[in-house]
Amino acid sequence: MDWFLAEIPEPDQQFYQKAKNRQSQLTKPPGSMGELERIAERLAALQCSETPSVDRVWVSVFAADHGVAEESVSAFPQAVSVEMVKNFSVGGAAINVLSRYLQADFEVIDVGLIKPVVCRGVISDRAGEGTANFCKQAAMTELQLGKAMLAGKSAVIRAVQSGAELFIGGDMGIANTASAAALASALLNKKAAELTGAGTGLSAQQVEYKTRVIQSALDKHHSALESPLKILQYLGGFEIVALTGAFIHAAQRRLPVLVDGFIATAAALCAVKMNIAVKEWLFFAHCSHEKGHRLLLRELAVRPILDLDMRLGEGSGAAAAVPLMQIACRLHNEMATFEQAHITTE
Amino acid sequence: MDWFLAEIPEPDQQFYQKAKNRQSQLTKPPGSMGELERIAERLAALQCSETPSVDRVWVSVFAADHGVAEESVSAFPQAVSVEMVKNFSVGGAAINVLSRYLQADFEVIDVGLIKPVVCRGVISDRAGEGTANFCKQAAMTELQLGKAMLAGKSAVIRAVQSGAELFIGGDMGIANTASAAALASALLNKKAAELTGAGTGLSAQQVEYKTRVIQSALDKHHSALESPLKILQYLGGFEIVALTGAFIHAAQRRLPVLVDGFIATAAALCAVKMNIAVKEWLFFAHCSHEKGHRLLLRELAVRPILDLDMRLGEGSGAAAAVPLMQIACRLHNEMATFEQAHITTE
Repeated sequence: MDWFLAEIPEPDQQFYQKAKNRQSQLTKPPGSMGELERIAERLAALQCSETPSVDRVWVSVFAADHGVAEESVSAFPQAVSVEMVKNFSVGGAAINVLSRYLQADFEVIDVGLIKPVVCRGVISDRAGEGTANFCKQAAMTELQLGKAMLAGKSAVIRAVQSGAELFIGGDMGIANTASAAALASALLNKKAAELTGAGTGLSAQQVEYKTRVIQSALDKHHSALESPLKILQYLGGFEIVALTGAFIHAAQRRLPVLVDGFIATAAALCAVKMNIAVKEWLFFAHCSHEKGHRLLLRELAVRPILDLDMRLGEGSGAAAAVPLMQIACRLHNEMATFEQAHITTE
Repeated sequence: MDWFLAEIPEPDQQFYQKAKNRQSQLTKPPGSMGELERIAERLAALQCSETPSVDRVWVSVFAADHGVAEESVSAFPQAVSVEMVKNFSVGGAAINVLSRYLQADFEVIDVGLIKPVVCRGVISDRAGEGTANFCKQAAMTELQLGKAMLAGKSAVIRAVQSGAELFIGGDMGIANTASAAALASALLNKKAAELTGAGTGLSAQQVEYKTRVIQSALDKHHSALESPLKILQYLGGFEIVALTGAFIHAAQRRLPVLVDGFIATAAALCAVKMNIAVKEWLFFAHCSHEKGHRLLLRELAVRPILDLDMRLGEGSGAAAAVPLMQIACRLHNEMATFEQAHITTE
């Protein structure tokens, strides 16, 4: 049996009830910390703990190139994927700054850039030299799909071994919003127009062109897109497949995940379509400015923590939302109860 | 001349332009950090700095009692104001937990509880023994209004002296959503029904009753409500007046403010109505679950950072939003530029 079909544990109902009970006793009107209460209650159930914690954060950024970039669907040239990986390795990117702020463990993994990047701190776990152009053929082979999934699993294994309490998966890959829009369209049986957006900064006219490119790929491969795995193989990117594998394995290993923006949410959708039990392990960090993201979140029936028009990827939106999860835990763990504070409740 | 009419400095346009220019050079698609970019740009202009910072946070919680509590407009008994101040003084409340998380300076000020609270760490700066019931008479005298305003100013002076980079003003006072709704209704010339909500947890029927109480006070005092100061005197609470004074003085002293929820936003509205130049110094932390808050934010034409159904007050929503302002600064200050990272931009 493939590893990604293995069982996924459920949240612990006893710890969930205990957490809800404690929330009702803390010195505040019931429900007055809003979503922060729900975050703490869910984490308590996932971590089987009366004092949930996400102080130890792990960030894996997966980088890969996309054959579809040759269709001119991105505002930036393909060379930028490699250049940004070098930027990650020297600490200059947004996700580096955020990881330092959070004192998070940070790693970047080359899962299939056009050219291997050999520099300090970049893990090489390559499934190929970029994907094929999915307008012409399947983006990857079955073998490559399996390798990229495993790259995600391996990252989670490293996170678990280091004692991580929260997993963030970031993405880097020029043209990857095209792949994510194609994946989401296929998984949700929607037209490309509903899910295709401006990515790193296309004009309205360019978005229209990008939409046509994606719709034609969806039409071309229609008969092959019979399962989430096939959809990933035909339309995915190595970094998105790695994220899918990471999210599934994190759930298998009882490691809560904070999902970033449009790319990561498309990967989360793939994971949930493969096994609905993954969803309990996912928190959603933010609603991106990228057009299709709000629809994805609605389809998943989840409420993101932030809504700040961010649209960078790299895991940056997830990292920005971490403090709110930490705050949710601290409030849950440290506030006095009405009884402790001798406060009249009626 | 009264101190609160003194001039308020404007944001520095040169530092603002410098900050915008830097944002466009950082290694990310232009605009892709959304609101975080605007926060950093505004802070740069306010602090006259190329490296804005809000690491040093100051929290003053103002506590007072409200005569209108005798009209049964709150889900909690009036005794809770004092009990919660004791809870603040021993570190058990939400705002204590959040202040510790932020390593913020924290103080609680009794600006007019029914009974003075004498315990460790509570600053006494009292304008009276609770306000009068504004359904029957003006909530406070002119003298009390001035004293409560000064209590806010004094808190800001302490903050400035300690080197604070961001000021948060919290509130505690049973029945203070009734006062805030009355103030906002009068300032915006709206019916009480538009601004009256459930506070700490009233039923729909109780909210209806609370609305009638507030509307009758608005009608009773209609002819006296001729200026923001008169509106504060007739309908305010000491802690709300103190917040108003604090926000004005923070702007006078070039200290950026992060405004909390419904109560603090009502105070911010008072301050802005007294002097529109205050507004540039205010950031808005969140949109509360309390009914009238969204309308207040819309009237002020501001976009809050968070929207998480919080409705506790105490400054808790503001404290929860601080990490996002800190993140905005770090990204602005620490990210590499395209040139530094040798990244192709076209």
